[in-house]
Amino acid sequence: MSELNERTLTSSGFYVTKEAPIHTDNPVQTPEAPAPDILRCAYMELVVTDLAKSREFYVDVLGLTVTEEDDNAVYLRSIEEFIHHNLVLRQGPVAAVAAFSYRVRTPEDVDKAEAFYKELGCRTERKAEGFTKGIGDSVRVTDPLGFPFEFFYETEHVERLAWRYDLYTPGALVRLDHFNQVTPDVPRAVRHYQDLGFRVTEDIQDEEGTVYAAWLRAKPTVHDTATTGGDGPRMHHVAFSTHEKHNILAICDKLGALRLSDHIERGPGRHGVSNAFYLYLRDPDGHRVEIYTQDYYTGDPDNPVVTWDVHDNQRRDWWGNPVVPSWYTDASLVLDLDGNPQPVVARTDASELEATIGADGFSYTRKGDTTEGFKLGNQL
Amino acid sequence: MSELNERTLTSSGFYVTKEAPIHTDNPVQTPEAPAPDILRCAYMELVVTDLAKSREFYVDVLGLTVTEEDDNAVYLRSIEEFIHHNLVLRQGPVAAVAAFSYRVRTPEDVDKAEAFYKELGCRTERKAEGFTKGIGDSVRVTDPLGFPFEFFYETEHVERLAWRYDLYTPGALVRLDHFNQVTPDVPRAVRHYQDLGFRVTEDIQDEEGTVYAAWLRAKPTVHDTATTGGDGPRMHHVAFSTHEKHNILAICDKLGALRLSDHIERGPGRHGVSNAFYLYLRDPDGHRVEIYTQDYYTGDPDNPVVTWDVHDNQRRDWWGNPVVPSWYTDASLVLDLDGNPQPVVARTDASELEATIGADGFSYTRKGDTTEGFKLGNQL
Amino acid sequence: MSELNERTLTSSGFYVTKEAPIHTDNPVQTPEAPAPDILRCAYMELVVTDLAKSREFYVDVLGLTVTEEDDNAVYLRSIEEFIHHNLVLRQGPVAAVAAFSYRVRTPEDVDKAEAFYKELGCRTERKAEGFTKGIGDSVRVTDPLGFPFEFFYETEHVERLAWRYDLYTPGALVRLDHFNQVTPDVPRAVRHYQDLGFRVTEDIQDEEGTVYAAWLRAKPTVHDTATTGGDGPRMHHVAFSTHEKHNILAICDKLGALRLSDHIERGPGRHGVSNAFYLYLRDPDGHRVEIYTQDYYTGDPDNPVVTWDVHDNQRRDWWGNPVVPSWYTDASLVLDLDGNPQPVVARTDASELEATIGADGFSYTRKGDTTEGFKLGNQL
Amino acid sequence: MSELNERTLTSSGFYVTKEAPIHTDNPVQTPEAPAPDILRCAYMELVVTDLAKSREFYVDVLGLTVTEEDDNAVYLRSIEEFIHHNLVLRQGPVAAVAAFSYRVRTPEDVDKAEAFYKELGCRTERKAEGFTKGIGDSVRVTDPLGFPFEFFYETEHVERLAWRYDLYTPGALVRLDHFNQVTPDVPRAVRHYQDLGFRVTEDIQDEEGTVYAAWLRAKPTVHDTATTGGDGPRMHHVAFSTHEKHNILAICDKLGALRLSDHIERGPGRHGVSNAFYLYLRDPDGHRVEIYTQDYYTGDPDNPVVTWDVHDNQRRDWWGNPVVPSWYTDASLVLDLDGNPQPVVARTDASELEATIGADGFSYTRKGDTTEGFKLGNQL
Repeated sequence: MSELNERTLTSSGFYVTKEAPIHTDNPVQTPEAPAPDILRCAYMELVVTDLAKSREFYVDVLGLTVTEEDDNAVYLRSIEEFIHHNLVLRQGPVAAVAAFSYRVRTPEDVDKAEAFYKELGCRTERKAEGFTKGIGDSVRVTDPLGFPFEFFYETEHVERLAWRYDLYTPGALVRLDHFNQVTPDVPRAVRHYQDLGFRVTEDIQDEEGTVYAAWLRAKPTVHDTATTGGDGPRMHHVAFSTHEKHNILAICDKLGALRLSDHIERGPGRHGVSNAFYLYLRDPDGHRVEIYTQDYYTGDPDNPVVTWDVHDNQRRDWWGNPVVPSWYTDASLVLDLDGNPQPVVARTDASELEATIGADGFSYTRKGDTTEGFKLGNQL
Repeated sequence: MSELNERTLTSSGFYVTKEAPIHTDNPVQTPEAPAPDILRCAYMELVVTDLAKSREFYVDVLGLTVTEEDDNAVYLRSIEEFIHHNLVLRQGPVAAVAAFSYRVRTPEDVDKAEAFYKELGCRTERKAEGFTKGIGDSVRVTDPLGFPFEFFYETEHVERLAWRYDLYTPGALVRLDHFNQVTPDVPRAVRHYQDLGFRVTEDIQDEEGTVYAAWLRAKPTVHDTATTGGDGPRMHHVAFSTHEKHNILAICDKLGALRLSDHIERGPGRHGVSNAFYLYLRDPDGHRVEIYTQDYYTGDPDNPVVTWDVHDNQRRDWWGNPVVPSWYTDASLVLDLDGNPQPVVARTDASELEATIGADGFSYTRKGDTTEGFKLGNQL
Repeated sequence: MSELNERTLTSSGFYVTKEAPIHTDNPVQTPEAPAPDILRCAYMELVVTDLAKSREFYVDVLGLTVTEEDDNAVYLRSIEEFIHHNLVLRQGPVAAVAAFSYRVRTPEDVDKAEAFYKELGCRTERKAEGFTKGIGDSVRVTDPLGFPFEFFYETEHVERLAWRYDLYTPGALVRLDHFNQVTPDVPRAVRHYQDLGFRVTEDIQDEEGTVYAAWLRAKPTVHDTATTGGDGPRMHHVAFSTHEKHNILAICDKLGALRLSDHIERGPGRHGVSNAFYLYLRDPDGHRVEIYTQDYYTGDPDNPVVTWDVHDNQRRDWWGNPVVPSWYTDASLVLDLDGNPQPVVARTDASELEATIGADGFSYTRKGDTTEGFKLGNQL
Repeated sequence: MSELNERTLTSSGFYVTKEAPIHTDNPVQTPEAPAPDILRCAYMELVVTDLAKSREFYVDVLGLTVTEEDDNAVYLRSIEEFIHHNLVLRQGPVAAVAAFSYRVRTPEDVDKAEAFYKELGCRTERKAEGFTKGIGDSVRVTDPLGFPFEFFYETEHVERLAWRYDLYTPGALVRLDHFNQVTPDVPRAVRHYQDLGFRVTEDIQDEEGTVYAAWLRAKPTVHDTATTGGDGPRMHHVAFSTHEKHNILAICDKLGALRLSDHIERGPGRHGVSNAFYLYLRDPDGHRVEIYTQDYYTGDPDNPVVTWDVHDNQRRDWWGNPVVPSWYTDASLVLDLDGNPQPVVARTDASELEATIGADGFSYTRKGDTTEGFKLGNQL
């Protein structure tokens, strides 16, 4: 349950508050150990079932740069990155996420992370030589919500290729932007990630205070991760940035030319939440990848927190274009520290899909309008 | 029925032929009188039921320039135009199209147009002073397919505002690009418009030779008009061009900001047919307006004619995004020369909507693929 | 000398007239034989002194598509082209232009072209098998101004790669847009090219009626060729189009990345004349290539002719950025039909460089302003 | 003098180091008092001599949003800003900069800033009610280099208009990005600003270790301020961001349309330093404003520091386009806390202008190339 008072309605139809309007009756304990100082989401380790096919998708189609590779894994980075990688593709038996990896400010913050999770009773594993190539001393944990998080500072520096325009493709991916996690109890997740040092920038709620999703940041963008309400723990997507909107359109055009357009799941479009321009793809294993550009600066501590009404049909697509159901229902498994998929727990709070589409759901373009605004749903 | 032999499969999955592969068993008579030399589609006269509301849509939202207006009509032009107008909004009792107006090369071509249609037994009306402000000697006809066509040469020149960047909006419309007409028998329509001097650039067919739509041009772009198979005569849409793709995205963003996103019917997206980037809007009366950019040069007489398979899921959207059913079913009435709506005749040939969506329809992303490719349709 | 009366001042600071305001006292004879019906500029044959180096520039850097090549020549086309080539690079001893080649509407128009020039006493050469690969029956002539012109209809069709977005580079060249010729007497050249069927769209003059340059079109863009006043006959540049402005910026970025930025001679910028966005490069032999996008439709016979004041500092760059002197002074030799360079005749009319820059020249940003507007010239 | 060892040459032609390679023999004392925690550059207070004219430039031409105004001052913000303003235009007798204002993380950081400068013996002034409207408790100081710095936390929140696309212009300014200060001794300035908590991201040096300029950041972009070597203290420019490159081009186009193109001083172009796309304008008083987009993330503590060779002709413009001399020589006066202009002290270190242009200067496109690379300079 969340507080909906003291919020201000903006001229754009959403609300702003000074404090994140999300509270939980079921919190994870707050450790006494200080949280590590997290800089940013740094890389995701994806388990893929056909490494060659996945390499083709991420390298030949999306144009990520191969830093290093072997028979078992490919280490990829975006064109402005200087750390060893932003994505690891590792061959494995079941498509899943092995790690959501965050970079911390100092080597000592890895110790802090370890202590923080140990106090919470979470399983942790520390490797001085790192869990993947190019990364040094790291700790991996299964966090209280069941997600495999990693924290590291040490990494091999590689050349930032930002100036190498001879290597750019029309849809060049320039940065890793964020992760998105599916979890049944969003307020509980938010409170825990606030304890870890993240700050809420936006959320989606209904009039009863049910929270459907929340966005949390370390670096001053709209998010480093988001918590999406649903059966979890699962990984909703990993997102890379382009410089401009036409770069995202170029990715769609190229997928069409390669007769791979069925990899496009949703978009391109303009998000309400984050105000970014977006596209969602599905990789050969069904892992969802977002391509994203142009959200806003959120680095001030009093950055206004934006709350969207779940019935606002422009919250997820500012143009009111429909969200395909698979976008709500599908997500990737996540692994425990032994490499086994975490069991998925069903969400018991209201579902955004049900609340907005279908027999009992409704959405509006203009608040108070009696016509239902979900365009495609009405028509099919 | 059309010829499907002697066509060449391209590496992009469609076919090209040297001659337009469309034939009709039911032709309109070919007049002996020479056809007028048509330069281009020049303007559409739209009857709207609430002039103030329509003006708001076309001027305040879409940013067209008012050349002139009175209590009954508003004359609008795009920013690169030097003739008096590209769109007339005229107050009337029933939303409809009063004229598809084409500019011809010389004053004498108006005489030719009149003779051409008289020989066909069509009703014609000639006005030396023009039917609308800013246009001189014109002939209006009800063509053999039931459409109200106009031909004129004389027009008042107004300033081409192309260099007036202080007047540009982020979504500036720079040219009128084309019309699109709904008609039950596409091959019959194509043959007639070829007699009038248009050339086919692209079409959509199935393996049996059923023609679902065809694109025809006077100026060397993909079209000045298109014939879309359906109950007709009706007007499917009128299209304006922008310079770049981001201009089209800006229109969507603005509609979102104004909480008018439900005016977006389909897109934005990349067409397969024409290779242009597009967006479809519905105006306050439901008239459909396309925003369009970046098709290709077609001015050579042997310009390859492109034929798309109706089951190719990238034909209408290169990214495979679904065509909303209303896009297939809705269209505007057209008027006869007395201002009465033309009766609508049902299409008896196969329907593209039925052929590609729903229980009996199918589409593919990759020819031969057994999975159905219509993304959203599969999911809802 | 030209007529400056009956022109209208626009709100953008240039003039428009209904008739091209250019007259000559020294005309080339007008043939009685009808002119061929020219569709468009089709290709240029460039003699280059180091074929491998030129291939690297046009293929590896600019991304043109190789249709065919051998030890002696490379045949290149833009990504939307369906005729065999838009550019031939041919190894030779002296960098020069062997042909400005135009496509005509029918095979018979090649006969017309031959007769047209024969009547003018020009040397002509006819080859049923064409002068280059992929082109059939053609006539080459040395035109009365000394330029090597070619006319052809027959050509091998190749695949239009417009939909092959997997082949696009960030700076993809989509069409051949125009040629530009340097000639001492612009009014004489204009009159002759009008006889050949071209129409003037824009020009640059001073108050005395001296014509510094004029733009002429066959297809309905601002030009298929332009006549630039200077020592000639020489070739000023050949121009290719991109879809959007960022594509042109991407070419600059890539040249920087390859440490080839000294190939950028002028721009990028916005032209006053044509309103297009532009960039001028110099190839390894110094041949000038323009990259160009977004001029306007000129296909109506009464398209307003634009006249710019030579002292308007925004005529050549709408942003008032300086034109580098080499852009005025440098140009490529052109060949006669034996492959020998044509002698260059000096311009005797006033020079645009002298009229606008330097001790006696002046330019203004705002007409009547007493400050000189040539920004960089003032400062160095 | 600076250290040039232990640097790595990149494939793009510049160097990277782990530590900023800048050292000073003439440091400002490092206070024992802790530095305030600076979030970001927040606003500049500009004294203008004709408020109406300046308002026209910043509001009507550049499109900044007026938060508040009175007879004496106009408070402006960019479209994504939620604090009261990013720019104050204040009427005054002499064009100058009254404050470079930084936002700090907490109210207590204002106390820290005051103590930090008091220990340095700098004049400070504290106002609980702020020095400008919309800003609360602030301290202003004359820093050891003579610049008027302000620090504040408290500010009135205003609506972030990021979603108000109905208010966007084609050249919309979305954020304040950075300041740039002219100072004679760059290493001394860098060391002092490092003491204040800024981190160096890039610099320009010669082989002897002379530092010509350095870029320093608080937020994780390339800079919040830069120190440019020259006669100072003076203000070189204030910079606003756009979302995309075409937005910057649109500003140029609009200035052309308004016949204000002589406000364009340099660009548009691509920077070498920062990799951003840029444009420099001069306002009616000659204050320089940069429009800027798409630099890179710098938030990791070991972000590679980039060092450019002063003779690399692509360092300031990646395309090798010339830097106009005024860009090096002109800058705005800055005020002391009584509102009097600070005296300007001449730089004694080598001048970048002299080192790269003119009789004794040289630049290269490709290191080792013997030809001089400064394109325009060679030609005029």
